[in-house]
Amino acid sequence: VHIPLDRQSPAPLYQQIASFIRQGIQSGHLAPELRLPSSRSLAKDLGVNRITVEAAYAELESEGLVFSKVGSGTYVLPPSQFSPLPKASPGAPWPLWQQEIQANGPDVNKSPDLRLHEKRHPDPISFASGVGDYHRFPVEDFRKILQSVMRRDGISALEYGEDSGYAPLRATVANVLSSQGLQVGSENILITAGSQQSLALVSQVLLKPGDAVLVEEPTYSGALNLFQALGLKIIGVPVDQRGLQVDSLEKLLQQVHPRLLYTIPNFQNPTGTCMSSPRRLQLISLADRYNLPILEDDYVGDLRYEGHALPSLKSLDPGGRVIYVSTFSKMLMPGLRVGFLAAEGPVYDRLVAYKRVNDLTTSNLIQRALEAYVTVGRYQVHLQRSCQVYRKRRDAMMDEIERLLPEGIQISQPQGGLFIWLRLPEGLRADELLPYAIEEGVAFAPGSNFFLGSEAGSAFMRLNFTAHPPETIHKGIKRLQKAIKRLEAGVNLEHAANGR
Amino acid sequence: VHIPLDRQSPAPLYQQIASFIRQGIQSGHLAPELRLPSSRSLAKDLGVNRITVEAAYAELESEGLVFSKVGSGTYVLPPSQFSPLPKASPGAPWPLWQQEIQANGPDVNKSPDLRLHEKRHPDPISFASGVGDYHRFPVEDFRKILQSVMRRDGISALEYGEDSGYAPLRATVANVLSSQGLQVGSENILITAGSQQSLALVSQVLLKPGDAVLVEEPTYSGALNLFQALGLKIIGVPVDQRGLQVDSLEKLLQQVHPRLLYTIPNFQNPTGTCMSSPRRLQLISLADRYNLPILEDDYVGDLRYEGHALPSLKSLDPGGRVIYVSTFSKMLMPGLRVGFLAAEGPVYDRLVAYKRVNDLTTSNLIQRALEAYVTVGRYQVHLQRSCQVYRKRRDAMMDEIERLLPEGIQISQPQGGLFIWLRLPEGLRADELLPYAIEEGVAFAPGSNFFLGSEAGSAFMRLNFTAHPPETIHKGIKRLQKAIKRLEAGVNLEHAANGR
Repeated sequence: VHIPLDRQSPAPLYQQIASFIRQGIQSGHLAPELRLPSSRSLAKDLGVNRITVEAAYAELESEGLVFSKVGSGTYVLPPSQFSPLPKASPGAPWPLWQQEIQANGPDVNKSPDLRLHEKRHPDPISFASGVGDYHRFPVEDFRKILQSVMRRDGISALEYGEDSGYAPLRATVANVLSSQGLQVGSENILITAGSQQSLALVSQVLLKPGDAVLVEEPTYSGALNLFQALGLKIIGVPVDQRGLQVDSLEKLLQQVHPRLLYTIPNFQNPTGTCMSSPRRLQLISLADRYNLPILEDDYVGDLRYEGHALPSLKSLDPGGRVIYVSTFSKMLMPGLRVGFLAAEGPVYDRLVAYKRVNDLTTSNLIQRALEAYVTVGRYQVHLQRSCQVYRKRRDAMMDEIERLLPEGIQISQPQGGLFIWLRLPEGLRADELLPYAIEEGVAFAPGSNFFLGSEAGSAFMRLNFTAHPPETIHKGIKRLQKAIKRLEAGVNLEHAANGR
Repeated sequence: VHIPLDRQSPAPLYQQIASFIRQGIQSGHLAPELRLPSSRSLAKDLGVNRITVEAAYAELESEGLVFSKVGSGTYVLPPSQFSPLPKASPGAPWPLWQQEIQANGPDVNKSPDLRLHEKRHPDPISFASGVGDYHRFPVEDFRKILQSVMRRDGISALEYGEDSGYAPLRATVANVLSSQGLQVGSENILITAGSQQSLALVSQVLLKPGDAVLVEEPTYSGALNLFQALGLKIIGVPVDQRGLQVDSLEKLLQQVHPRLLYTIPNFQNPTGTCMSSPRRLQLISLADRYNLPILEDDYVGDLRYEGHALPSLKSLDPGGRVIYVSTFSKMLMPGLRVGFLAAEGPVYDRLVAYKRVNDLTTSNLIQRALEAYVTVGRYQVHLQRSCQVYRKRRDAMMDEIERLLPEGIQISQPQGGLFIWLRLPEGLRADELLPYAIEEGVAFAPGSNFFLGSEAGSAFMRLNFTAHPPETIHKGIKRLQKAIKRLEAGVNLEHAANGR
């Protein structure tokens, strides 16, 4: 084989070789099944390095023009018999496996964002959110901390971290929990992408499709969506002023053998109630007797405005019975997506392994910045100030509701957290109220989001009292008053019409 | 009831009321079942707001001292019959459900970190990593960008973002993909926490325990770990110099009805090979005929040092057959944990919903910073420079291996990516070599990590050639040479001993 090589050309030698052979194959001069010279002998003939010839052959091979058999040599391939499939025309059916997805499986809820702005109200007020007041998030402090962390740690901040999370952050979390009466070592902490990921990991490790899971009813919609997506059998246990009705639990445990109980003992989402101490003790005792894992979601346990803190279920755990989940997101910055869980025993190791297969690890940079922020005591100060501010807002909203909304409305005062849970007067439905409310420029989370059946919650709504200052709360509740009046008028009109 | 109230006291009135009643219950003066006065009447008697009395009753209720029946009133409860369970002694058995976790289910691999430092080598060199050179990550640029994003966006950067990801970042991803020949709209992009989460989400949506999944063998260990954790039936298809052996696929598709094929067509991990164009066309055609979803992992497709880019499987997709997964992590900063996928049809909506139930959304701040970084063209420049640097390092490692390592070693030159896949001479095992190598101060990823059975890969190792400059590569391969000599000496000694 003689291949003319131009050693002055900017094109590398291997490309010149590949190009020559490519033309030979495409023109038919080099026939299918022809064996090319060995790289060693061609390299010798051309006076080039053997690796250069190998690179040329590799390029031709990746193009599907030649193939090599180990120990035998490199051969010319017949031209490909495969041509690209035509693009499907718009409206053509999806492949079968896509149609199955459409037909089967739960229709997982979309984000419950109410998109107030779509209604183009000039000044919308939302009480629907699930987090604290964005305007109180310590953005500027955090910006500075990010800077100093990147200056301090350089590249390390951008490498993968440990599977279980950045060790100093785990130590900080353990310290914060200890100060709240929950003794736990940093080796039992797993850092996750927010509480939601903690819930997802626990579900993946403990549950398979069809398994029964117990939840408070009503409960956090994000947990319901998760359990629905995983194809679980969700069983609701009612909640009253003292939290989960533990008395009704024992019969259930005997009948359905649930594989997990999910509970929010403090300032329950959405009802705002706390599980009483006796019920906490009773629940732990039942979990122990009935071999029931407990998933304790303490999403805003430290946002308490009055009364004594109650012992977490985890602190009452004799050992390995409770998986405790919490987050800084609600208090600091939801967009950071950092939460944590505390567990021990085989389930801890399994959770770490599942975290790894799910997303390797949570952003190292953000973990380091959060650690730098929380250790210096800023978190505690921020928490105390938030409690002062949010307590006033709760009082303001309680007052405005009592003053402005109709008689038949039922609420009870939450001792902490983010939410007031409101029951509308007999005959009014929250889902029917919502469009009026949005027209008036105020939004809330309708009760049906938090129940298993959409009918069960129709009389309820959840109002976030922390998101706005008292003046805005006043304005928002006034708008709600107007919306309720409009709904009532409509309902009365209908009654009158039916009465004729 | 007469309750003495001290209006000068710093203790709020509701706490004084609660404290008085608490003492009455605890001393037995207020007997179980006793009905307390209604909040309205007690408020009137004491001359306080009704809400104050309700707060006192709520506090007592949360402590488990009283309970209220709707419409009936508040009653004193009998003392709790539940006492805390004693803490389990060290060494006590875990609850049964924890023992089940230990006994059943796959033993998911730990992080394959080799912990070179534990051997206390003064100057360890690792070729084991799965990412580019940390020292080339644009830390300083990124620090500045983070600053300007936080100054520009303020609170918005720390709020939750859209379920599918920050819209401008999705647009940027779509632009980058289009420039690489893959036409896809930003409405078909989902931002995830790194490629690993993309793989996890696709698996969750498409597969259930026991389903068959096809993988290249060898393949990325993180995918194998994921599929094992999910309890899937994993079936390996061999890889040769032209990538996945598509010819052997059709029989498998008829026999086992797999629910997914996972492939890395470009610079396959760990072998470094590229799937040839004819095979790509053939694979799409088979997927179409056999209703087989394809998960295309293009983790470093743009890190090409020579030769033509080959069309991605996604670009050959007639519509909705291929889910395309990629990331900026390998090139920029792994610790950021941002990846993306491109898909269309019902599976896209389902993936977005699963992303939401898994962790709501990926850090908004990091997404915004990445968007600001990538749009200004820095990514393209960074990519080009990285290709120049990494190409030289590949050549250096190829040369050193050829020069220093024994004759029987087989390698082939990768045209891009991060890895050289090396086969040891007959009779030598990579897992036996590794301890010697670590003692000498060099690490690699042993082949068994990438195969389904640990024996299959025993002759192979994966070397990352991008992680270090040529001088360090030289030093590292010299150490590997020493380690191989020591292993060979040991093996020969054993043979001699056996021969006696």
